[in-house]
Amino acid sequence: MQQRITLADIAEQAGVSTATVSRVLNGKSNVAEATRRQVLVALDLLGYERPESLRQTSKGLVGLIVPELTNPIFPLYAQEIEQLLAPSGHTPLLCTQTPGGTSEDEYIEMLVDRGVAGIIFVSGRHSDTGGDVTRYQRLRDRGVPLVTINGNASTIKVPGFATDDRAASRMAVDHLASLGHTRIGLAIGPGRMVPAQRKRAGYEDGMHANLPDQPLRIVETLYTYEGGASAAARLLEQDCTGIICGSDIMALGVISGVRAAGKTVPQDVSVIGYDDSPLIPMTNPPLTTVRQPVAAICRAAVTTLLSAIGGEQPADTELLFTPDLIVRGSTAPAPHTMVS
Amino acid sequence: MQQRITLADIAEQAGVSTATVSRVLNGKSNVAEATRRQVLVALDLLGYERPESLRQTSKGLVGLIVPELTNPIFPLYAQEIEQLLAPSGHTPLLCTQTPGGTSEDEYIEMLVDRGVAGIIFVSGRHSDTGGDVTRYQRLRDRGVPLVTINGNASTIKVPGFATDDRAASRMAVDHLASLGHTRIGLAIGPGRMVPAQRKRAGYEDGMHANLPDQPLRIVETLYTYEGGASAAARLLEQDCTGIICGSDIMALGVISGVRAAGKTVPQDVSVIGYDDSPLIPMTNPPLTTVRQPVAAICRAAVTTLLSAIGGEQPADTELLFTPDLIVRGSTAPAPHTMVS
Repeated sequence: MQQRITLADIAEQAGVSTATVSRVLNGKSNVAEATRRQVLVALDLLGYERPESLRQTSKGLVGLIVPELTNPIFPLYAQEIEQLLAPSGHTPLLCTQTPGGTSEDEYIEMLVDRGVAGIIFVSGRHSDTGGDVTRYQRLRDRGVPLVTINGNASTIKVPGFATDDRAASRMAVDHLASLGHTRIGLAIGPGRMVPAQRKRAGYEDGMHANLPDQPLRIVETLYTYEGGASAAARLLEQDCTGIICGSDIMALGVISGVRAAGKTVPQDVSVIGYDDSPLIPMTNPPLTTVRQPVAAICRAAVTTLLSAIGGEQPADTELLFTPDLIVRGSTAPAPHTMVS
Repeated sequence: MQQRITLADIAEQAGVSTATVSRVLNGKSNVAEATRRQVLVALDLLGYERPESLRQTSKGLVGLIVPELTNPIFPLYAQEIEQLLAPSGHTPLLCTQTPGGTSEDEYIEMLVDRGVAGIIFVSGRHSDTGGDVTRYQRLRDRGVPLVTINGNASTIKVPGFATDDRAASRMAVDHLASLGHTRIGLAIGPGRMVPAQRKRAGYEDGMHANLPDQPLRIVETLYTYEGGASAAARLLEQDCTGIICGSDIMALGVISGVRAAGKTVPQDVSVIGYDDSPLIPMTNPPLTTVRQPVAAICRAAVTTLLSAIGGEQPADTELLFTPDLIVRGSTAPAPHTMVS
């Protein structure tokens, strides 16, 4: 190795003594696995190359199939899952999709051909109520352990882990209603997908409970910034003063749409996102949003997958995780109605 | 297939006739490849499952090794590269790193074992001037085509593609100097890495040209939000009114550090980031930053890798791409000095 490693820096970062760092770097065996890992993490954080002695043998590949990386919630899921997989010694293989690129089925085939130990699906075909569900059954018939994240269609029998989307929209409606909003709209993605269906149900629950006389105002669009901007235009035509969105990116699009219509957020229109990820608190205004419990979902999904890889038979049920409403600056009391 | 596909929707999204969509979906051969791909992209964008007839056979795996996904520039690189790889029929395999997880060398081994067609390294060990460079030579000796993105150490002989980091810092200094700032600081990552060295050189160029009497104010820290916040404290002690950062995430940390010190951005302190990615224009204030020419870099890298996979011998040189200074709201004229 050509690099000079400063033992003191690594020891400080790892929170261990320099003697311990030295023992780990020299591959001595009298070090606890957790301590060894702490030193490994410190080396990585400081950007040092790992000595050969710390090279690990992979316990097998774990495929991680996600839709795309432009919505920051997906990199967040991927990063969290990989971090949780690390101590198990499995090598994560991230399969991301781009329009016109490799499809979920093509990835599955490639992973199975390469002897994958298990697969985690994030927002995959499993949540498409109009899709073919046999691929998951076929995978299990071939003995490939799998778990899903973000909503199983009712026809699919695999362990699933998801944010309680119905509760998410319900808390968003409750929040806007408590601020005096009555004309509340919902901008969501394609209705074939389980998360959109659940969000719609939660919105309906909330409207019936809080504002039974108000019509439902729902726009189905794409889960993108542009989708949000176009939904805003249609919801403003219906005089909405509060808009609940299916994703944060969509909410940022809604904010741009509201501004394009000459109105301000949150004075004229309150906007609530969904997902939350590290940059979202820094938007202008800071976005009020429903935070997916990413860490808890990933922990449950990874633990279940690893136990299935270990030969156990996890239950084919879906666990729902309760999200948190994070109130920031994009929601405010409803504007006073000027018309009598 | 259980889904109902609306031909008209797909035709509209793809910008072709419904008859063409129908021909593509039914696997007819009298359709140009570009048109077929347009329909494929439209299906994907609308979230429809692809019919079996459109299933593609992979032309081989391409490994894409990136450092981590928490800095949004890396998902952006990954997404762009995958999009550019798609028409070639290769299957991208994204290998991302987490502290303590699978290392670059372990990924390389796994990819080579699985018969990878080629590898793209983004901000890998190739930019560590203190690291072991033989891994890249060994890979080439084994006949694995590779290209790198984001700065080759001078000892490494592989085709490289990078933003001109020296020019980037130079334009940042010029911008601040033109606004009347004199006490300008630089917050960058570990100095072993080529991009940090180049950014430092550009900062020095700019200071010597614009403000030869001023001392250099440089803080080396981690490329993180927290790293930025701590760098801000140290640069404010040196009375900086302008701070240039090694990444946007670091710049957002600097802004939080400036605010923690009771000062405002940009009135008291101007801050310039580096990278630019889709959420950055939405920060508060919108971040002035130096934009990496991601699309151009990825196009060159992918084209070169594919030609190497095709048997050509690309030159072992590094191409530098000129970035753009994107002036937004985090920079302003220097505050008037209150002391005489």
